[in-house]
Amino acid sequence: MIKLLLTDVDGCMTDGSMYYTAAGDELKRFCVYDGMGIVMLRKAGVPCGILTSETTEIVRHRARKLGLEYLYMGVGRQKDHSEVLRFAPATEDPVRLPFRSKLQAAQEICDELGITLADVCFVGDDINDVELLRAVGMPVCPANARPEVLAVPGILCLTHKGGDGAIRELTDRLLAKI
Amino acid sequence: MIKLLLTDVDGCMTDGSMYYTAAGDELKRFCVYDGMGIVMLRKAGVPCGILTSETTEIVRHRARKLGLEYLYMGVGRQKDHSEVLRFAPATEDPVRLPFRSKLQAAQEICDELGITLADVCFVGDDINDVELLRAVGMPVCPANARPEVLAVPGILCLTHKGGDGAIRELTDRLLAKI
Amino acid sequence: MIKLLLTDVDGCMTDGSMYYTAAGDELKRFCVYDGMGIVMLRKAGVPCGILTSETTEIVRHRARKLGLEYLYMGVGRQKDHSEVLRFAPATEDPVRLPFRSKLQAAQEICDELGITLADVCFVGDDINDVELLRAVGMPVCPANARPEVLAVPGILCLTHKGGDGAIRELTDRLLAKI
Amino acid sequence: MIKLLLTDVDGCMTDGSMYYTAAGDELKRFCVYDGMGIVMLRKAGVPCGILTSETTEIVRHRARKLGLEYLYMGVGRQKDHSEVLRFAPATEDPVRLPFRSKLQAAQEICDELGITLADVCFVGDDINDVELLRAVGMPVCPANARPEVLAVPGILCLTHKGGDGAIRELTDRLLAKI
Repeated sequence: MIKLLLTDVDGCMTDGSMYYTAAGDELKRFCVYDGMGIVMLRKAGVPCGILTSETTEIVRHRARKLGLEYLYMGVGRQKDHSEVLRFAPATEDPVRLPFRSKLQAAQEICDELGITLADVCFVGDDINDVELLRAVGMPVCPANARPEVLAVPGILCLTHKGGDGAIRELTDRLLAKI
Repeated sequence: MIKLLLTDVDGCMTDGSMYYTAAGDELKRFCVYDGMGIVMLRKAGVPCGILTSETTEIVRHRARKLGLEYLYMGVGRQKDHSEVLRFAPATEDPVRLPFRSKLQAAQEICDELGITLADVCFVGDDINDVELLRAVGMPVCPANARPEVLAVPGILCLTHKGGDGAIRELTDRLLAKI
Repeated sequence: MIKLLLTDVDGCMTDGSMYYTAAGDELKRFCVYDGMGIVMLRKAGVPCGILTSETTEIVRHRARKLGLEYLYMGVGRQKDHSEVLRFAPATEDPVRLPFRSKLQAAQEICDELGITLADVCFVGDDINDVELLRAVGMPVCPANARPEVLAVPGILCLTHKGGDGAIRELTDRLLAKI
Repeated sequence: MIKLLLTDVDGCMTDGSMYYTAAGDELKRFCVYDGMGIVMLRKAGVPCGILTSETTEIVRHRARKLGLEYLYMGVGRQKDHSEVLRFAPATEDPVRLPFRSKLQAAQEICDELGITLADVCFVGDDINDVELLRAVGMPVCPANARPEVLAVPGILCLTHKGGDGAIRELTDRLLAKI
């Protein structure tokens, strides 16, 4: 049984679109079905978290709305000038951390929860997700994942695309096993 | 003959997308055809209303534009700290109510109109709509509804998706019978 | 040969989506290919105009960007409290007019240009466009038009949907005949 | 081997949608996969640039995010009252230039880099891209390109549409050859 759900954002919780305005504001399109699925999984006792290389208030707003336990932003960008922001469940203030890859961030959460990567389900769609996908017990990708991701051994490729119900398809599968 | 049309918002009047900006603003995508359909149904004497678990100005703007008779926001969220906002037809000021499920909200409207749930058509797409869908005379869902909704006895599944003309397809059907 | 191109907006120049924010702002999605097509048609000497029942700055911005000769907003809404705004080519200030149906607005433009409705190509997609579609020489609709529009005698139904190149498909056809 | 990648924006890096608000703000939809592809190509030593006839802060924001070496805006619009803005890699301040066609802008960059148009890969989708597409060594278009572009001799038509991974498909192809 999975004890932690982690997911990337762009292409997994969204369709990979990045909307820009003249003011530079960015806008992301999430899916109401995914939200309901994550809320149900959390009620069933499975903590959920986001690992993204982006650093944007957009994701923070979505994570807050869904009540996610873990949010890492800026993770795995570049070793030199990286600042990883981690948001704890009970506070709005981020913890500022030095460079962490997605694999290292996932391991850090596992250590806190007293579980191992074998207990983790991770959803990723692009090459910067491959390292962690290869390390977790249940690697998953949306239908729109890149070829390098589809080649991960044992990966479960969902029938839905990111932003179009992929996460809900996964949470329904996980809940059916509880 | 149906005497009241009630509908959920996300996934029924929209495609289930929830757009977030860095400012936390949310944006929803409605369909011009649905709007024309609701306006025609109201002109034919059928009152229309929205029941949504979300609480957002977005829905209020859309309801005002369409001249809807009933709007319940925050309905059926959580018994403990729920505040249901009800907007009456003739005023902008919401009535603040304690917890109401979608079923209870629909029953409340029926009592005011002197009709029964058998006279109601309700459009829903996700598990939190199932209770009311099972209780009304004409349960309807868009093509993108969740499996639990498709399993409601006697449900009419529209050929169009939410946000892509599902509501118009329904109002055209209803108007053809008047 | 067509001497004037008139078009509806929602569902013809857009996909019929209406995006709402919490601030009530609305957002419409236009197509870059349509824009290029209208610019080319105008360079070839065919004036172009928009007839819409909506009244929104969004359409005014798009009309200005494309340099359209005619823009009627609020046309054909309701006889009683309607205010039609007409924007002339050379000025930003609207002319405020009493009620006009889309048919009356088109006739008004024809009178000014010294042409007849037989010289006009009009693109519409919903029931409020049918009256004018039946009156012009070249009635056209996008692939997503409502059944009532598809039933207009002699109507040309484009293979592209509104907002996805329908107008460009039409301007390419018109330019091929010049 | 290609020594420079140049691309149009609307319809190539986006799906050709142009979103307008009542405030006139425009919004464009880019693709996260394209971004990752461009970043990888640049890391592999191939400079990248944008040539667009539009002049909008939106594109500038996207170019900055991707760290593009070259950005020309307002290029090829109209000879008379054109102002081409060129953004150099190391500064935010634009260089204001008189009229340049996309072909002239590409030639200018080639001269600086000491390469020829035969070394250039250019991605375009509409008639105003044809002149340069015919001049470069590797002409490419997204799946949604106009017929006039598909007719360019030797053009590579990608299987993905603009804004839906077309650029990433191209960068993956280019990187496979390095």
